Amino acid sequence: MKTNTVKGTNDYLPSQVALRDYLQSVILKTYQNHGFERIMTPILEDIENLDKSEGGENLNLIFKVLKRGEKLSEAIEKQQFKENELADMGLRYDLTLPLSRYYANNRAKLGYPMKCIQIDRVYRAERPQKGRLREFIQCDIDIIGSSSNSCEIELIDTTAKALLAIGIKNFVVKINDRRLLKNVLLTAGFLPEQLDSVCITIDKFDKVGAEGVRAELSEKGFAEESIEKMITIFGNLPLSLEDVKKYCTDEEALNSVETIMNAVNEINEGNYSIQFDISLVRGQGYYTGTIFEIQSLDFKGSIAGGGRYDNLIGKFIGEDIPAVGFSIGFERIFAILSETGYEIPGKKKIAMLFDETDVIPALKKADELRAEYDVVMYVKPKKVGKFLNKLEEQGLAGFYNYGQGEEVKIF
Amino acid sequence: MKTNTVKGTNDYLPSQVALRDYLQSVILKTYQNHGFERIMTPILEDIENLDKSEGGENLNLIFKVLKRGEKLSEAIEKQQFKENELADMGLRYDLTLPLSRYYANNRAKLGYPMKCIQIDRVYRAERPQKGRLREFIQCDIDIIGSSSNSCEIELIDTTAKALLAIGIKNFVVKINDRRLLKNVLLTAGFLPEQLDSVCITIDKFDKVGAEGVRAELSEKGFAEESIEKMITIFGNLPLSLEDVKKYCTDEEALNSVETIMNAVNEINEGNYSIQFDISLVRGQGYYTGTIFEIQSLDFKGSIAGGGRYDNLIGKFIGEDIPAVGFSIGFERIFAILSETGYEIPGKKKIAMLFDETDVIPALKKADELRAEYDVVMYVKPKKVGKFLNKLEEQGLAGFYNYGQGEEVKIF
Repeated sequence: MKTNTVKGTNDYLPSQVALRDYLQSVILKTYQNHGFERIMTPILEDIENLDKSEGGENLNLIFKVLKRGEKLSEAIEKQQFKENELADMGLRYDLTLPLSRYYANNRAKLGYPMKCIQIDRVYRAERPQKGRLREFIQCDIDIIGSSSNSCEIELIDTTAKALLAIGIKNFVVKINDRRLLKNVLLTAGFLPEQLDSVCITIDKFDKVGAEGVRAELSEKGFAEESIEKMITIFGNLPLSLEDVKKYCTDEEALNSVETIMNAVNEINEGNYSIQFDISLVRGQGYYTGTIFEIQSLDFKGSIAGGGRYDNLIGKFIGEDIPAVGFSIGFERIFAILSETGYEIPGKKKIAMLFDETDVIPALKKADELRAEYDVVMYVKPKKVGKFLNKLEEQGLAGFYNYGQGEEVKIF
Repeated sequence: MKTNTVKGTNDYLPSQVALRDYLQSVILKTYQNHGFERIMTPILEDIENLDKSEGGENLNLIFKVLKRGEKLSEAIEKQQFKENELADMGLRYDLTLPLSRYYANNRAKLGYPMKCIQIDRVYRAERPQKGRLREFIQCDIDIIGSSSNSCEIELIDTTAKALLAIGIKNFVVKINDRRLLKNVLLTAGFLPEQLDSVCITIDKFDKVGAEGVRAELSEKGFAEESIEKMITIFGNLPLSLEDVKKYCTDEEALNSVETIMNAVNEINEGNYSIQFDISLVRGQGYYTGTIFEIQSLDFKGSIAGGGRYDNLIGKFIGEDIPAVGFSIGFERIFAILSETGYEIPGKKKIAMLFDETDVIPALKKADELRAEYDVVMYVKPKKVGKFLNKLEEQGLAGFYNYGQGEEVKIF
């Protein structure tokens, strides 16, 4: 039998799980302290829901679950060999689609606006490479049912506080608005139906630079004049919100970004900053307004991201419901903090060594000690000294040798 | 789009998640206090590993994940339409097979014996009916690398303490040993190769009675004489361990059960009892020795189960490693406790109502209050009275109306 995990997934050692659990519990408590409530949805979703969910590139990365029994036989007999004919469910690729379905399914029993937490696994059939897991954790907060800018402010505030609480410092919040981005691109001469495709290319500014972007847009066949105008605007980053006003006529979007930035600058207590970035795109197709991202200044790349998606829930209930969310990239955080010698608070752990004939009194003694310590039971091995060395290596604090002296010995 | 969850899975409301999280955290802390460490494995496992895992009936209930890209096209071109040709992975149906693979994969980095916790989701394509979920949580502790009876004693002690800690009382631990069971059946005249099939039928004594068992065994074509002998033994339950000694020659198994029962009777502090039950079978094929189960006297059926599986890990590493585990049926516990009006400890939650123009000072005030309360922010609605009534219904403790008096009002 194969002993390794399937590609792109991990076994986690006890010390890793301890850190993961601790980080998740601090993030969860911070979210809860800010009034959000945890909800939970299945990992499995209907295949059609997943396919219609505007997940952009992620739709190509869905793990699909084979039909079973008669339904599978029927598909094969009828020569229905398309993925969505052979499969009836899929593993969720994010927590936003399940949240939208959840809201539609349970709306009568939920508060309005609803402020919710999801900390859970998602799945993507990525080509495995460093940092790209196929099974990973996302930590999301979402506010459903309010179009007030105070939601964006609150989400940024809460997410930043969660990061600070687990010891992530030195980060910057980047903010943009899909409406501004589209407005600027229209000004440059692109057509409304071209915007999504243009955005996907603009998203690569960081990686390929102005020349790379120009080349890709030419290849896609867009008008050279529009490309040049866009490069003039985006080639001179960073642009201030003031600069963008020259190219942009959407007052509502401009005001919205301004309000959010002003508020965040007032409440951040100097712990982090917020910057406008017209080149911020975010991959998902469902964003409609504000988009934001948190970038670490110590470690390359994004550690959190989100935005407003006012049309997604409407797909389920035939009525537009405003919604906005912010997601912490837990695996990135875990990878960063794993390398720092993180101290996890909790009881110290000691070993109780006992002869098999003493199991009953040894268990009773261990129970007394458990008020102060976590106590692990071990039948005394032949080479006690060597065994104790190993326990010390594994990070235990000490031991109690039953029948050999009546006290806990700390290493 | 479809708003309901896929068949056999649940959306959990905030109050349900709060209870589930609380129960899991108390169980986890009890396990940790008894020296077990949490590990984590992927939900996805290699399809061949799952198929070779001796999971009994569960092997028919595996959700399988469709191959992707070229591998799928290749299977279809070659007309490979068997499930295991179309799929390359499956969702785990329990936590024991992944644990065995995990141990083989990571053994150099783990303590020996290893005492580990798994609290996580598993999947079975059950026919959905009351209480039979397709996605559910198991809470397991396992000890790998020791054949001492102290392991069984410790697992029973720890599991019982976890149940007591979450408020489950009035239960009995049932114990048997696969070796005794098989020994008795051999004495009755069954052949070694018939035992697994006979056990599956005996497992139904509870449901179908002696007549039902007799009929099913006759139908399976076993010798009438053996069936009659077996019915005489099993038809007069409960048999004491003393009674069973008459039919059984396996001294080691008899001593093992006796040692475990004596110790548990010494350490249970009168909170629960342990009973020998020769008719206890447990479904999985991989058990080799002790098997146990916890039955609630207040609620029908089993709430925890486990046993010794000394051969399973050997399949991965070609060397027999003793192992024993005990699993709490979390969903059963959750169903029972959901109906009892369970009190979850923690901070009280209040609402902060504010006008949108006051968002900055309201957030600052909320932050002060968060030392004592969880605080949820709401833009003041038009009908404040009605809104407050709803918050009270949802279980909030009170509110702070920003700009309208300077104190928290408790409902």
